[in-house]
Amino acid sequence: MTEGTFSRRRLLGTATATGVAGLAAGATSGALGHAAASEGGPALSTLGSATVPFHGTHQPGITTPLQSRSHLLAFDLAEDAGRRGAAALLRRWSTLAAELMAGRLDETGTGIADDAGPASLTLTFGFGHSFFDATGLTALRPEALRPLPAFSQDALDEGRSHGDLWVQIGADDPLVAFGALRAVRRAAEGSARTRWQMNGFHRSPGATARPMTGRNLMGQVDGTNNPTPDDPDFERHVFVPSDGEPAWMAGGSYAVVRRIRMLLDDWEGATEEERARVLGRRRSDGAPLTGGDERTPVDLEATETDGSPVIAANAHVRVTAPESNGGATMLRRSFSYHDGEREDGSQDAGLLFVCWQADPLRSFVTVQRKLDRGDALSAFLRHEASGLFAVPGGAAEGEYVGQRLVES
Amino acid sequence: MTEGTFSRRRLLGTATATGVAGLAAGATSGALGHAAASEGGPALSTLGSATVPFHGTHQPGITTPLQSRSHLLAFDLAEDAGRRGAAALLRRWSTLAAELMAGRLDETGTGIADDAGPASLTLTFGFGHSFFDATGLTALRPEALRPLPAFSQDALDEGRSHGDLWVQIGADDPLVAFGALRAVRRAAEGSARTRWQMNGFHRSPGATARPMTGRNLMGQVDGTNNPTPDDPDFERHVFVPSDGEPAWMAGGSYAVVRRIRMLLDDWEGATEEERARVLGRRRSDGAPLTGGDERTPVDLEATETDGSPVIAANAHVRVTAPESNGGATMLRRSFSYHDGEREDGSQDAGLLFVCWQADPLRSFVTVQRKLDRGDALSAFLRHEASGLFAVPGGAAEGEYVGQRLVES
Ligand code: HEM
Ligand code: HEM
Repeated sequence: MTEGTFSRRRLLGTATATGVAGLAAGATSGALGHAAASEGGPALSTLGSATVPFHGTHQPGITTPLQSRSHLLAFDLAEDAGRRGAAALLRRWSTLAAELMAGRLDETGTGIADDAGPASLTLTFGFGHSFFDATGLTALRPEALRPLPAFSQDALDEGRSHGDLWVQIGADDPLVAFGALRAVRRAAEGSARTRWQMNGFHRSPGATARPMTGRNLMGQVDGTNNPTPDDPDFERHVFVPSDGEPAWMAGGSYAVVRRIRMLLDDWEGATEEERARVLGRRRSDGAPLTGGDERTPVDLEATETDGSPVIAANAHVRVTAPESNGGATMLRRSFSYHDGEREDGSQDAGLLFVCWQADPLRSFVTVQRKLDRGDALSAFLRHEASGLFAVPGGAAEGEYVGQRLVES
Repeated sequence: MTEGTFSRRRLLGTATATGVAGLAAGATSGALGHAAASEGGPALSTLGSATVPFHGTHQPGITTPLQSRSHLLAFDLAEDAGRRGAAALLRRWSTLAAELMAGRLDETGTGIADDAGPASLTLTFGFGHSFFDATGLTALRPEALRPLPAFSQDALDEGRSHGDLWVQIGADDPLVAFGALRAVRRAAEGSARTRWQMNGFHRSPGATARPMTGRNLMGQVDGTNNPTPDDPDFERHVFVPSDGEPAWMAGGSYAVVRRIRMLLDDWEGATEEERARVLGRRRSDGAPLTGGDERTPVDLEATETDGSPVIAANAHVRVTAPESNGGATMLRRSFSYHDGEREDGSQDAGLLFVCWQADPLRSFVTVQRKLDRGDALSAFLRHEASGLFAVPGGAAEGEYVGQRLVES
């Protein structure tokens, strides 16, 4: 077996968790490229040495297969930082990210991540609406970054929403991820202070015997109908084109971040049939209620003998389907979170929902408006925090992320 | 290569994290026993199918190699539960634990853990001081369970300390661990309510290219000088002997649980030399300051040319060494924790310190008294919660954990 075969297997494994199977970027990035041959797929001991490149057309952490640990952070710039301070910070962060992602983890200065390779570490940087006022760059703020509308079911904590700058960290080892978190914060000292910070996770690589789509904390197979890079329209849906507007966002993408708590006691109290009806798919294997297996397309037209639709009018997969939303498409790349027990004895757990798109108004907002009005799954969810960030294209060698904006 | 070789390798890998290398219980338990052959050690895809047996002389989760995820929970019995209610709960929990650990994860009823094997799941159950009054079993309370003395540096949160019952969950997959947590809580409904709950983690299996002792969030190699089952006195130090007192604790052990926050900003602000002096070992590879490598015994007698000791009088490894404490020995099996950011902007992170011993007064209390008086590491630590639990021996087939107590 060739090394390429392994990369591919691995991609089919974790990548299908986001539906980005066969993803070119990942395949060349060689996640687990150092894998030794074995019957059961890549060797366990290769997990740590897997690297994802920092430089490229797009930033890492968008089409990269989901890692098992993540930290999401937002920062607000110091009063006196201004455009120069922001530029210097972005330069420091980019240098740091390139070093850490290449496995030079002594850069963390913490020692935490010594002796475990980068473990597919990625760092991704974005700008919030307020960044542009704070840096005098208001004229360059993309139209697409206008604040998300309020949704009737929102119960947002402003302190855990928004922010001038957003950083997404992902890695397949918690110590590597934590080391990167400490280093990112340290590099921000004096220039920006953390506004909020969240920890996410995903299934451990290797936990399932065969590659398969991941599950969320409701036990649902989550990510099946994500667009894949094989789709002819993938780039167009997810990334701002090279001749797009504004120019500094070429190759970039907009990230919507929603902290969505799950009402797990209610959910687990429902019958398996109710749960299937709410989603429109079976929980066990993710197959649509209209038959077939996980990969079979949902048949939204199918009816019962009495004429009622098999996929309910308010089933989550109907409400969110591109067909129901004029083709609206986004790449969902979410992590689970679990922050212990709440005052009322329920678990503080759910989804750090992150979705990527070229046009958030057309994609996330269109779908979320519809979900907000009549989605069966929403009865089991609480949207607690929200952010919208412009994530510029990847840095070329010698360039830093966001340079095209802050030096324009 | 035989399967045995792999089990052994794996044990040497993760097990050295707690120093329980070559551990007999683990070797027969066949953690990663399904491993396929490969140059780089066990295949990644075998992680999920690894099982640890529930039944045995000792409960699982004590000498079991550290898993990458853990939940620690304490419960208080309902007012009207009494001895019968407690017995019924222990029976339910034991049945559940045996099922889950064998990989019959549909028992979680949550679906969360479907399709990922048990991933070395362990569940461990213990009794706190208050359990005995709540169940009318005061006469059977072990002397060893008398409350820990107050230490001058304690800043304990009573709400996150103690409890009638303690449950330790560990697994190499976060969804499996979370599924077990939900199931344990559900099984307690009506009989007991959660008093506190904490989430821990450890390096991902496979994150380091070669097997090595784990690190804590201070970046220290942590676990080197743990006793190992090869030590002639291991059983005597860690477990209550089969003819020990009280009889129902035969094969059991006492767990001390301390939530110890790390003052990471201070720690990372110190120089590498200071950090080494504070511990008595180099941070980079864990070697003692008196020379050699990680496994070289610390030479507490060694002096500098000016006559001062190489290992400082208040160095953590001197203060805690059995030689300094009349032979006091414990098995440390701790997890890191990270619960996000605190109000003051520092990380809420540190060690869920768990240590196991036959006699907590002789082991933990002796050492902690000394640490409390003059340990250089303590300047970087805050003990925030505390628990002491009597963990009975393992259940035989057909028996439930604690049966010998509640039915005596
Ligand atoms: C905690 C909250 C949520 C959960 C647990 C959840 C769960 C799921 C699941 C299980 C599926 C079916 C499998 C799949 O195709 O991935 C799905 C599909 C989908 N969800 Fe969600 N979802 C949540 C929130 C959202 C939100 C906020 C949006 C966007 C506003 C969204 C958009 C979509 C889309 C576009 C699909 C694919 C529809 C299709 O083409 O079949 N979801 N979701
Ligand atoms: C966050 C708190 C703590 C940290 C970060 C920490 C860290 C360490 C490290 C890095 C070592 C050296 C490597 C090793 O042998 O494992 C060590 C040794 C040790 N620690 Fe701690 N420790 C902590 C708390 C405690 C506490 C509360 C106790 C017991 C009361 C304790 C008892 C020991 C013992 C017995 C040794 C082995 C000494 C020897 O035989 O060389 N530690 N600790």
